[in-house]
Amino acid sequence: MSRNLHVAIVGATGAVGIEMMKVLEKRQFPVGKMTLLASARSAGKTLPFAGEDVTVQELRADSFNGVDIALFSAGASISREYAPHAVQSGAVVVDNSSAFRMDEKVPLVVPEINGADIASNSGIIANPNCTTAITLMALWPLHQAFRVKRIIASSYQAVSGTGAQAIEELRQQVAALAAGQPIEKKVYPHQIAFNVLPHVDSFLETGYTKEEMKMQNEGRRIMHHQTFKASVTCVRVPVYRAHSVAVTAEFERPVDLKKARQVLGQAPGLEVVDDPANAQYPLPLNCAERDDCQVGRLRYDCALENALAFWVAGDQLLKGAALNAVQIAERI
Amino acid sequence: MSRNLHVAIVGATGAVGIEMMKVLEKRQFPVGKMTLLASARSAGKTLPFAGEDVTVQELRADSFNGVDIALFSAGASISREYAPHAVQSGAVVVDNSSAFRMDEKVPLVVPEINGADIASNSGIIANPNCTTAITLMALWPLHQAFRVKRIIASSYQAVSGTGAQAIEELRQQVAALAAGQPIEKKVYPHQIAFNVLPHVDSFLETGYTKEEMKMQNEGRRIMHHQTFKASVTCVRVPVYRAHSVAVTAEFERPVDLKKARQVLGQAPGLEVVDDPANAQYPLPLNCAERDDCQVGRLRYDCALENALAFWVAGDQLLKGAALNAVQIAERI
Repeated sequence: MSRNLHVAIVGATGAVGIEMMKVLEKRQFPVGKMTLLASARSAGKTLPFAGEDVTVQELRADSFNGVDIALFSAGASISREYAPHAVQSGAVVVDNSSAFRMDEKVPLVVPEINGADIASNSGIIANPNCTTAITLMALWPLHQAFRVKRIIASSYQAVSGTGAQAIEELRQQVAALAAGQPIEKKVYPHQIAFNVLPHVDSFLETGYTKEEMKMQNEGRRIMHHQTFKASVTCVRVPVYRAHSVAVTAEFERPVDLKKARQVLGQAPGLEVVDDPANAQYPLPLNCAERDDCQVGRLRYDCALENALAFWVAGDQLLKGAALNAVQIAERI
Repeated sequence: MSRNLHVAIVGATGAVGIEMMKVLEKRQFPVGKMTLLASARSAGKTLPFAGEDVTVQELRADSFNGVDIALFSAGASISREYAPHAVQSGAVVVDNSSAFRMDEKVPLVVPEINGADIASNSGIIANPNCTTAITLMALWPLHQAFRVKRIIASSYQAVSGTGAQAIEELRQQVAALAAGQPIEKKVYPHQIAFNVLPHVDSFLETGYTKEEMKMQNEGRRIMHHQTFKASVTCVRVPVYRAHSVAVTAEFERPVDLKKARQVLGQAPGLEVVDDPANAQYPLPLNCAERDDCQVGRLRYDCALENALAFWVAGDQLLKGAALNAVQIAERI
């Protein structure tokens, strides 16, 4: 890019919005002007960006005058209402919500996988679900080598995936329990401290949650693989940051463990951490605030033929959200 | 049983040993005399049982004179060394370690599933792995209805499965982090507070851990189903008590969700908690200190044909250990 750009962040005060600013700074994105947008409640706050204090403004239909790139992360209903205004104002929108992910006219992109799809945008590019993005970082190189048929996966999702209030809820519950006081529940329907909740997003008639079906629905679009199947159980765990996923993947072509290690080792944005004898495997704690996802525990699956089992972890605020969005913006 | 029995607990000061005493009391097991055995380090301590203080004695080869039933939970090497002495002294051993689980001469028993196998014992009956026992409580009724072919499962295992020191390690790490102090690691190779570890038990050449293979190896013996396959990823989570397992199970006969609910609802020792619309599903926090395991999130698997997905949780110190052992003792 030859000139400095006017960037807007919608949902600037949220967990992902804050990360978007950090990622733009770290990657030296050519920001000429930064506009921070949020609800009326947050308007007037200042947030530091590139050495200056930027005042948060209330999000309005006319907030996007002169904006080149608008990064949205304020929920699907905000995106549905305001992304069209941003596009009309001439901005390109990178949307982190689920609003447009299944819209055939909107490319859904993990740059390392289908960055070329960005070119077909009509003003909006969708950022995938965090658990899906992290899982696909490891699945895609294996898919290219062996062609994936289906996966069965279970997630271990950090509270920061829910947002800043959930981080606070876990912290307060831990403190209350240590003090022998009753815990408060505002964000989650059950205690999250020292517990796990098999419940992320709302439930569908099938018994799966919306979150669980994103793996299959979004995975098909990102990998251009319409028969890909994914059965997922999404579980919230008392981890502050970074999601982990246990995956069994069945392939169409014969799998080979040596080849699998090789293609994973060469995949961009992915680090192989797989030395169990020395207790080295991906850990959410080690992936927090890291750009790269990590994969390990790679093995031939012992229950399904022609299948591999593995464990992948990644910072869902980065690869699962802010980093991926900025990577898309870099390619626009 | 018509008379009061002389019961010995080996590993009386451990997390499972303590639970064994509680379960014996709660179930009014006809204990005439209680002998508590542990290492020399713990000898001399007193523990309350049935309103009296019982002094812990050092475990020795001649500790079992007059003992009718010896409940072992002090690790595999202790069982291998001392269980034969107990048998020679005329006691029947219920062993909670992995020492004899794969010994063809030793029945491996979950009473609700293969209680009849107890009759074939030659002095020792093995108690299964905790994660296996909890999973089979839900899998067995489904197997009887539809005949299971294979499962793919991921566990969310509480620290108390490791023992009393691990409970203390989690507590201390949480306190240290709250105080901004460095954490100590003695039991686990990595921080367990606000983290998850895809590492339970030691690793095999295949890339699976011993713990992970217990599901298939022990499942085959308990269900009398030699072609049963299980691919498991065992993960330690920062939960104090009760394990959870996400399971996809493929069956040979056509599955039917209504029938599945019916057989699970009728299974002894199992409670169906499955009302996602009202955020009701099994939680480890709710299963702690409960005898019954809970199953929920039951649904047709969307990736495998003729398969069901479900979520099962249970107190691994009870059904996974002490309760199951006492249930076996009741049937001897």
